Order: sequence, then C-alpha cells, then structure tokens
Amino acid sequence: MTTTDNAVSPTQAAYPGTMRCLTKHHAGVGLAYSDSHAIPSVGPRDVRIRVKKVGICGTDRHIWEWDQWASNRIPVGIITGHEFVGHIESVGSAVTKYTVGQRVSAEGHMSAGVDYNSRTGNAHIASDTTIFGIDRDGCFADYIVVPEENVWPLHADIPDKYAAILDPLGNAVHTVMSAGVSAKTVLISGVGIIGLMAVTVAKAAGASRIYCTDINPPRLELAKKLGATDAFDARDGSWIEKIREETYEGVDVLLEMSGAPAAMDQGFRALRNGGTAALLGLPAKTVHFDFNAHIIFKGCTVLGINGRKMWDTWYQMEQLLLSGKLELDEIITHEFPIEDFETAFATMISGEGIKVLMDVNS
Amino acid sequence: MTTTDNAVSPTQAAYPGTMRCLTKHHAGVGLAYSDSHAIPSVGPRDVRIRVKKVGICGTDRHIWEWDQWASNRIPVGIITGHEFVGHIESVGSAVTKYTVGQRVSAEGHMSAGVDYNSRTGNAHIASDTTIFGIDRDGCFADYIVVPEENVWPLHADIPDKYAAILDPLGNAVHTVMSAGVSAKTVLISGVGIIGLMAVTVAKAAGASRIYCTDINPPRLELAKKLGATDAFDARDGSWIEKIREETYEGVDVLLEMSGAPAAMDQGFRALRNGGTAALLGLPAKTVHFDFNAHIIFKGCTVLGINGRKMWDTWYQMEQLLLSGKLELDEIITHEFPIEDFETAFATMISGEGIKVLMDVNS
Amino acid sequence: MTTTDNAVSPTQAAYPGTMRCLTKHHAGVGLAYSDSHAIPSVGPRDVRIRVKKVGICGTDRHIWEWDQWASNRIPVGIITGHEFVGHIESVGSAVTKYTVGQRVSAEGHMSAGVDYNSRTGNAHIASDTTIFGIDRDGCFADYIVVPEENVWPLHADIPDKYAAILDPLGNAVHTVMSAGVSAKTVLISGVGIIGLMAVTVAKAAGASRIYCTDINPPRLELAKKLGATDAFDARDGSWIEKIREETYEGVDVLLEMSGAPAAMDQGFRALRNGGTAALLGLPAKTVHFDFNAHIIFKGCTVLGINGRKMWDTWYQMEQLLLSGKLELDEIITHEFPIEDFETAFATMISGEGIKVLMDVNS
Amino acid sequence: MTTTDNAVSPTQAAYPGTMRCLTKHHAGVGLAYSDSHAIPSVGPRDVRIRVKKVGICGTDRHIWEWDQWASNRIPVGIITGHEFVGHIESVGSAVTKYTVGQRVSAEGHMSAGVDYNSRTGNAHIASDTTIFGIDRDGCFADYIVVPEENVWPLHADIPDKYAAILDPLGNAVHTVMSAGVSAKTVLISGVGIIGLMAVTVAKAAGASRIYCTDINPPRLELAKKLGATDAFDARDGSWIEKIREETYEGVDVLLEMSGAPAAMDQGFRALRNGGTAALLGLPAKTVHFDFNAHIIFKGCTVLGINGRKMWDTWYQMEQLLLSGKLELDEIITHEFPIEDFETAFATMISGEGIKVLMDVNS
Repeated sequence: MTTTDNAVSPTQAAYPGTMRCLTKHHAGVGLAYSDSHAIPSVGPRDVRIRVKKVGICGTDRHIWEWDQWASNRIPVGIITGHEFVGHIESVGSAVTKYTVGQRVSAEGHMSAGVDYNSRTGNAHIASDTTIFGIDRDGCFADYIVVPEENVWPLHADIPDKYAAILDPLGNAVHTVMSAGVSAKTVLISGVGIIGLMAVTVAKAAGASRIYCTDINPPRLELAKKLGATDAFDARDGSWIEKIREETYEGVDVLLEMSGAPAAMDQGFRALRNGGTAALLGLPAKTVHFDFNAHIIFKGCTVLGINGRKMWDTWYQMEQLLLSGKLELDEIITHEFPIEDFETAFATMISGEGIKVLMDVNS
Repeated sequence: MTTTDNAVSPTQAAYPGTMRCLTKHHAGVGLAYSDSHAIPSVGPRDVRIRVKKVGICGTDRHIWEWDQWASNRIPVGIITGHEFVGHIESVGSAVTKYTVGQRVSAEGHMSAGVDYNSRTGNAHIASDTTIFGIDRDGCFADYIVVPEENVWPLHADIPDKYAAILDPLGNAVHTVMSAGVSAKTVLISGVGIIGLMAVTVAKAAGASRIYCTDINPPRLELAKKLGATDAFDARDGSWIEKIREETYEGVDVLLEMSGAPAAMDQGFRALRNGGTAALLGLPAKTVHFDFNAHIIFKGCTVLGINGRKMWDTWYQMEQLLLSGKLELDEIITHEFPIEDFETAFATMISGEGIKVLMDVNS
Repeated sequence: MTTTDNAVSPTQAAYPGTMRCLTKHHAGVGLAYSDSHAIPSVGPRDVRIRVKKVGICGTDRHIWEWDQWASNRIPVGIITGHEFVGHIESVGSAVTKYTVGQRVSAEGHMSAGVDYNSRTGNAHIASDTTIFGIDRDGCFADYIVVPEENVWPLHADIPDKYAAILDPLGNAVHTVMSAGVSAKTVLISGVGIIGLMAVTVAKAAGASRIYCTDINPPRLELAKKLGATDAFDARDGSWIEKIREETYEGVDVLLEMSGAPAAMDQGFRALRNGGTAALLGLPAKTVHFDFNAHIIFKGCTVLGINGRKMWDTWYQMEQLLLSGKLELDEIITHEFPIEDFETAFATMISGEGIKVLMDVNS
Repeated sequence: MTTTDNAVSPTQAAYPGTMRCLTKHHAGVGLAYSDSHAIPSVGPRDVRIRVKKVGICGTDRHIWEWDQWASNRIPVGIITGHEFVGHIESVGSAVTKYTVGQRVSAEGHMSAGVDYNSRTGNAHIASDTTIFGIDRDGCFADYIVVPEENVWPLHADIPDKYAAILDPLGNAVHTVMSAGVSAKTVLISGVGIIGLMAVTVAKAAGASRIYCTDINPPRLELAKKLGATDAFDARDGSWIEKIREETYEGVDVLLEMSGAPAAMDQGFRALRNGGTAALLGLPAKTVHFDFNAHIIFKGCTVLGINGRKMWDTWYQMEQLLLSGKLELDEIITHEFPIEDFETAFATMISGEGIKVLMDVNS
C-alpha cells in the first residue's frame, strides 16, 4: 500500500486566470487533464474554494467508465469530482456566513431552496436537486465555486484526509443514524467503501454487535478489523441461521449497501420481525421482491437512504470524528498527486485501493 | 340493503353441553352448521365467552372458498370466525383480570408470550403466533374459549355492532396510526372493507386531505361519503399528476390496502419525496419493484402492517369510537342470524354487502 | 362586535420616500403614529414588503404598556409589530427565491444561520435570534424589510385575514403538533388567543376529546363553540377528578398556555402517567414545582415550546388552513384602520377583542 | 476493597419449611436476621425462586435508616430487598412460561395488568404498581415468590454478579436509552451507583463525549476510568462554560441523577437549546425552577424516568451486557455472606462500598 502523505508538490496552472482540472472531455472512457481551464467566477452568493485534497467516489468510477448511467446523466465537458477539502479563496458580494481563509468542505446537493423538502431539513431529496461534479463543474480542480448555503466549515481538529471524504462518510452516517443502532444488533450487507465506513460508524454509534456479508473475502477481513463481530461470505447462506440464533430471531437492523437482489433477500431473512432496514445500495434494475414475507408479515420498517441530511448528518459526523472512535485510516488506502490521476483511478478500479485520495494543492 | 338489527331470536343447541357453530367440515367449498358441537372446556388461564354477534372477514371468505392459502393453512374440522362480541360466561381457576358477565371482545393473535416481540408490545408479530378461527377453534359458535391475556373488556358506550368488528377496524387503525396522518395528506389505494374503514379513521385522526383509488366505482363513491376529499378510478392514471399538484409534489402518506402491484407502483409515484407508505394489502406473489425510484432516491419510509398492536391499537380504537367521529354504519351493510350463514356469506362474496354481521345470541 | 372588513381607505404617507408607521417613541406607555418615517432600504439579500394587514399580539400589548419585560428588551424608537401579510414591493440584488408582487408573510425570528440549531431545522431557538418588531423595526408600517430567508409565500386560497396571523397561529400549531394529539385526549390550560387557536387546531389535527380550563367564563364558552368537549373554571378544581374518570386516569396530552403556576400544578395532576405536556405559557417568575409527583414518578414527557419551526410548522399551518377545518373567524373579532390604532389597542387590552387586526394598505 | 467472590458457604435455615431472611422487624433503624421464617407458598401463577445473590440498593439504605420516606411507605415486618439472581425452585399450577431450574431475575414492579399503561408497555408506571421488597416481601431471603409475569430468564453468558443487579442497571439503561445518546454529547449530573452505571452504559450506547459532575472527587475519578471524557466538581461552576465551548453551545443530553436543585439548575444551563434532559434523581421536596430559561425558551424536551420498561429495557440490558462493553467490575466493590449483612450495610452506607452484594445460596 503506497500512501504519499502530504508529500505532494503540485505544479501550477499554465497561465494566469487558469487552473488545472480533470474534465469529462468526451463521451467515452477516461477523464482529461488540463492545466489551462478558466478559473470559475464567483456569483454574489457563492464562495470560491482553493481545493487541497479530493476523494475518488464510486460515482467517479462510473463517470470514468462511461457506463449507461453516466452517459445518461453527465454533461460532456464538466469538471468531475465531489469529495474535497480546501480553503475559501474569495466570497461573493452578498455572502454573509463565511470569510476568506476558512478551511471548508461542501455538500454536493444543491437546490433552489424553495420546495417542501428543502425548507424542512431534507434538501438532499428536493425534487430540483443538482449535484456538483455530476450535473455541473466539480472539485477535481484547483478551484471550485459553490453556493454559500452548501459550505461546511471544518473543525480544526479534523485532519484534511478525513475532511476530504465527508461526502461518502455522510452516506454511511446517514444510513446508520437513520436506522438507529444504539444497543442493537446490525447486519451490513455489502462492505465496499460505504459499507466499511458503516462498520466503524455503527461501532462508534453504539451497535452491540455488527455482522457483515460480502463476496470479497479481504474486505470481510477488513470489516472485522474495523469492528465487525463476525463477517460472512454471502455465497454460503448458512450464516443466516447462525445470526438468528445469536439474536432475537434476527438482527434489529439491516443496512443494505450492496444493491444486490440476493443480498436484499438474505438480509430481510436475517432481520427479526419488527426490525428496521435502511437501504442505500442501488439495485441495477427492478427487483422481484417478496413484500409479504420480508416486510408486511414481519411488520418491518424500511428506510430509503439517499445522500445525507443537511445538516444533521454533518453535525453527527463532526461529533463522531471528534469522539476519536472512527477508524478510517485503513479505508483510506492511497493518496496520489492529481497529476497521477490515471494511476489513482486504476488503483481504485482494480480494487487494490479502497478510498483513494488525490492531492491538488498543499 | 337488508339489515336485521337485533331482531334475531336464535334457536338453541340440540343437547345440554353442546352448542351451535360453523365448522370447516371438509377440504372444499363452504362451511357446515352444527347444533350439537361440544362446548369447549376452560383451562385455568382461559375465559369462556358466550358469543353475541360476529363479523365475516375477507379471511373467512378465503376459508369458505378453500383457496390455495386456506388449504395450506386451515386445519379441517375447526370452528371458523375471529371477529366477535360477547359476554364472559365462565373463567378458569387462575384467571385474575376478568369476571363472569363482562362484555368483551378478544384479540385473535395468541403467542406463548416469551419471545422478544411479545414482551415488547409487538405480540402481533411474535414468531409463534397462532390465530383463533384460523389455526384453532374460533367464534362462529355459541361459545369461544380464549386466553385471559387476549380479552378486551368493552366500554359501555360502544354498541355491539361496532364491538363485533374491532378486529378489522384495528387493522385500519394500526395502519393509519403507524403512518401518522395528523395534518397530512393521505392516499388510500384500495377501498375494500379495511380501506373504507381507513377513510373514516384517517379523517377522525386528523388527516388534512384524503384521496382514494380503486377500480370499484360504488366503493369510491362511498369513500367520498365517508370523508375522502377525492376518489379516483385507478385504471386512469391521470389522477397522479392532479394529486401531485394539489400537494407538496405528492401526498405525505400512502396507505396501500389493495395488494395490487399496479396500485403499489401508482401509490409510490403519488407519494412525495420523504413520505411514508404503510403497506397492509398482501400481493398475491412477489412483485417487480423499482426500489430506486420508489424508495431509495425518494428517501421514503415504508412500514409493513400486520394485525394490530396489543394493546395500543385497541386503546386508539376506543378513543376514536368514543370521540363519535367514526362513521361505520355505511360500512356495516347487513346482519343475519347465524343460521342464515349461507345467505350471509353469499351477500359478502357477491360484493352486495361490505361488512356482514351474524347474530349468534341475543 | 365591530368588524370593518376590508372597508379601509388608508391615507397616504406625507412625502415621497416616507411612510406611515407606529413607533415605540419613548420609554413609556403607548405608541406614536408617524406619516413621514423614511422607507427602509433593501439590502442585497432582503425583500421589501408593502404591508396590507397586521395583527396585534399580546407582546405588542406588553410593548404598549411598557412593562418590565418591554423596558428591558425593546429599543426605544423601533417600529413595532410582527404579524402581517403583504406583497413584495422590491427585492435585493442577490435575492433568488422570490419576486416582486408575491403575496407573502414572514417568520419573525432571524439568525445568522450558522449555528447548530439554525442548520438543523430549529432556527427558532438559535442562540443569536432576533425578532422584527421587538429587536428591530417591525410591520406596523407601510413597508417592512426582511431577509429573503424569512419570507413565507402564501397559498392563493388562504385569505388575508388568516395570512396576517400566521405568527400566533404558528405558536398554537407548533404546540399541538409537537405534543401529538391524533386520537388522544387533550387538556388546554388557558384559552387566551393562542389557547383558543389551539382548540380549533387540536380538533382539526385529530384530538379525540379536548378539555379546557381558564378563569374567564366567556372564553370558556367560546372554547366549547370552537370544539372543546368540555370547559371548566379552573378555580373549582373538581374537574380534575371528572377528567380522570373520563380518560385513562388522566389526559394523554397537556397543552399549558397560561403560565400560571396553579394551572401548571392542576394540569400535571390531570395528566395521565406517561403523558406528554407541552409548555408554551411563560410563568412570570420561578415556580415551586413538584418534579417527583408531576414528572418523574409519572414518567412524563415535557416539551418546551417557543416560536414555531421553520418551516415544518408553516407547512402544517398551510395544510390545516387548506383542509378547511380551522375555525378562526370567532377568534378574529375586530379590524381597524391603522390610523385607529389607539382604539385597536384599547379593544384588545380591555378583553373586548380577542385577535384584533389593523388594515394598513388595501 | 475486599471482594469475597463466590467463597460463601451459607448456613442453613433452622427447621424444615423455614428459611433465612432479613426483615424490617420494627419501626426503627436496622434489619433483623432470622433463620426460621416460613418459606412462602406458591400461588397458581407464581414461581418460587431460590435466591443466590442479592444487591443492596440505595432504597434499602433508606429502609435500614428508617427515614421519613421509609416510615411512610414500608410495612413493618416485611422481608426487604429487590435486586437478585436465583433459580426457579417451584412453579404454580397455572404457570406456562417457565420451568424449575431456570436461572432468573425478576422485575420488582407488579401490577394487576389491566390498566392503560400496563397494557401498552409501560407497566412500570401503572397506577396500581407495588414493588417487592418495598410493599411486600422481597429477596433478602432463601426464597422469593414472584408472579410469573415478572420473571426475567437469564442468558447463560451473563454472570451472577451482573444478573443480581439488573434492577439498578435497568434504571441507568432506561435513562440513557430514553434520552438517546448515540453520537451525542452527554452530561451526567451525580455519579452515585446509578450515575456511574450510566457512564459505562452511555459509552457503550455510543455517546460521543460524556461529562460528569458530582461533589465527591473519588467518584469523579472513577467516572473518568469508566469512560467519562471529563469530570467536574459541581461546586465550582466554571465547568459550564468549558462544556458549552466544547459542544454546540451545550450538551445534547442531560442525565440528571442527583436530585439536587443546584445540579438541576447547572445541568439545564449546560444543556444546549433544543436538548433533552432525562430526570431520574428525586429532589427531596419541591424545587424553585426557572421554566422559562431552562425549558420553554430553550425548546427542550424533559423526560421523567422511573423504574425501567418491561421489557424493552431488559432486552437492551441483555444486548449491552452481551456486547462486552459494560464495565461494572469497578462499581461492584464488595460481596459478603448474607449473615454479614451488618457489615455489608455499613460498607455501603459509609461510602466505602459502591454496589455491595450479599451471597445467599451458592
């Protein structure tokens, strides 16, 4: 595992008024590096942030690979990336909340702020939501411009490498906290990046026992290292009976993070009557689902999880990070200079890396 | 509509120590009437109740018609029926809570009372639950014996004809109260017996607007009479857009009472992001379901509803009935003497009747 | 009861660039009328609203009478008033959410929007909150300037006279909805303006029975007219036993709206074990309180209620108003032109009026 | 610290059909030891339990010292004690749930089981509750008889010394879990027996930071050992400002376990706006309380905590104990044979011991 910790000496943009960035330059595989992209201008309610460190998300991989979802959603030409930490470099004329120099991250979900969900603490599911790095220019660049409303000022005690990945950590925290795990038994089906984060989050949030399933043995081992009581290869379903025996005929909480129909079916079978399932993993298409056995007769509660709450989840993250209980260092496996983005993406796509960071500015 | 209100003069059982009842006498269509079935004996923790009035449930229809579910579940030979009101006629030696003469109904779900759900207010979803009238002798009889734990003593102000149908009313109340409808917009998909009850319950419980869908126009008309703001034929899906315009881009609450996959799909499309769906209707088989569009991206909460809570739901029913706000008289369309059970079942099965009662003892 | 409904023909301000208003002109009783106050300028994120109709709050009475609270809190010289409806007359350069001409009201609580509560749906209890009409210029004027964030656009079906009093109605709705009254018995102690609103709100929100207490018999009569099941003179405590007999040994919910220590004591005695008390009324000073009997042994939940939630409460109000279930017309007793403010205040202070409105512009 | 772990060789009762026990033999200080008390008979729905190990509660100290509360409540002549573990020795004729030989503890709160709270999961606050060891014979004896309904069967992995103190541990767990501490900051005011248990429970349940106050420095040191982030002498109030700076202007959760009015006042000042306070400590008399500053303006939620829930709390305890996260060994400081009860009580009353156990049968 090669981790280049803050050893980056980034090169400069080619011309004044320009910056380096990674763009989705064509309707095909890969991203293009530029060192002469125009620095974005700042609207009256925006802040411009000098980006320090970014994370590569599974979504960025979809964009890189230009799969069906990406080709339907992503406008060719945009700067990609939505996980970052940086410092405010300039503020718009009407900005009142933040000042130049503050170390910040930002929530990627943006809305006009006038619909029901935006005004009642659920802007992350506003019907007019757009996301930077997906629907418009993102953070794989020297600078990103975001609305003041989306800024998250960082506590001084949270190091950059964690601050750069609050977006995916927020997915994990939103899932865990929505389900509620305190003094409860938990099954996490799928221990990819978010699933592994959910292990350490669930442990820190007070889960009494944490079970994990996946079909990737090394990830299962890592899950145990991060706090899972036990971890099972999902391909051998005998674990369901084992879990049912060790619990009140099933776990209290299922955190579904794989999107695999078979994992959903197993997960609900391992959930006790009256339990709660939080679904974050996205199935590739419609699922044949036994509502009677899995939800109705069981009297279960099912929560759809999307993004993270503004700003309940961010405060929960801050409290969890400051508690010192989160173990993220084994999940953040690699850091590369942004110029080495091809290696960075290859490391992430091969599965050699889990969370891969890129350093943009020091 | 022929309603014989308390005009019954029931005949007697044939011999001392025997009683009249309806049994599932063979593995085929229909029930058999007997006037010489042995009166059941009373265990130390049981009460024996002289049955006054009973209701015919949709489940009783399945048992009558001996469909696949019934032939798999129902033991041939049992007395059927699980909705009733009566008076305690004798109590077991160790009974402490009730006395002879009390007017009572009873919860049909019985469990040993030692598992997690039974001990935490969710006995209705205990894994060892059995139901009288389904798994063992029920209430279509002069007498029924039930465990003391299952007795519900009746408030004097609640008339017999409502007291006889607390079981299905409880399904409606459990669904409505679990979802929470106070000051919220509600869509009820499917206005059969329980769906119609849900209309009046939702109105009494404070729903701001109630929309209904079904494919039975007279039932839709009745739904409006009971308090629905508007009611739509589900076969013309244009109502979804209308509802979305009149609400915050969708209703706050979906109460799914049809079990029809098409209704589930429509219902979730009509539900706003962040809304709550309570599922009571049982699909006939597994459903092709779009979890992404309907639950995950929407950030919805889905509740599986089964039976009714012991005893939260029963107290809620009592409060709602005593408030005088429930309109049940148009849902209870017919009453027959139990000897006319063939007519009673025919009336219910034809759809001419909605809730059909039978009088057993006066 | 004299109600001058929209018959006002308001006079004009004395000079261009000036407006009419009521100011707290000196540290003593009363308010002063001016027709030549400078029209306030609009900051980049503000909107200026041409005020149409305003309500007189109990707080305005304290300011008029210049009691101890007022003399400690209110800056001499400000324009008072915080309940209003009007139309946006101009918008600041950075305003994005609203446009000129929209009919609006506004939330009076303003904060910088950067603290924990402001960012998690509880801006009404932000530690840096200020309120217009109390801490800075308010709405008893031709124009008021408010931050864009505080604007509430009005549904076309909500008439002006209700739109003018969403602030106090919001207090009632926040109290009722925080406690939760659906299918529950409720005691409202104190039926002043907010208490009377709480009666009709609780009824619309699904309370099964509503009891009221006060020491003002006409208000008790009005409470019954608005939906109270029963109403008692608090000076004769025998009602407590009556309520306990008609309920599960006490009401499910207490809404305390008097601030009187005796009413608090009575209210908690009338609350069942495990019940919920929502406290809105402000005691004049510290209270001798029996925590053991009233809260700890009883296992009660007590909610402190302040202001109204941004914006959950406002949406709840909108749904309740659109449901057609709220009966506010008997609570809004008088309307006067703003020039007749002395009569308006006298009518309110004497108790002849309940909610008194003033018309500013037609 | 002298701990005699299971080294007891208890003597026998004097005659067949008699047993050893401690009774409140007179209306004054102390308890009396007898070795010839009649063994209690078993009713049809009762179980008789051979007691193995018991805990001395603060309540037992009040009974010993015969203070005002005790002299008003305790019937002279009863066997005292309500914390124990033992084995079922015989069962009544109508018992169905448990069998001879099972290792069990029992919930001390008994009710007829017919009122609202008993039937909705809150039997601990039933209006007709009585408690063994307080209102009738308790467990400081070779045998105790309890209703079948009150039995808690013990998981094999929970050792006797923890099983003996599930009653007070349940107070701590009920308080912590009612408030909800997952990813939250917590202040525990008062670290007596229950307060110390609350420290380890809150840590296990996922609190992000735990602050404690008391006026007993050694207990504060122990609190830190058990997981408190920081612990303060309550007599120097400067800690309030420190906590407010380290949190979102106050802790999320206050667990009040002292009953001291000054601690309540401090605790609410240290609680953030919108926070939750759970009150377990019983003030000696009525409290002068500033409802405006502490509850209403703050928008706080206050929970009265009494006993523990049947059986939610017991299951939570089981999960927490099985998680291996609870650190109780430093709280259980002493064990004595029941014959040494005078030493046991003296050790507890002096404050030298915290939780003191007595061994009855091996």
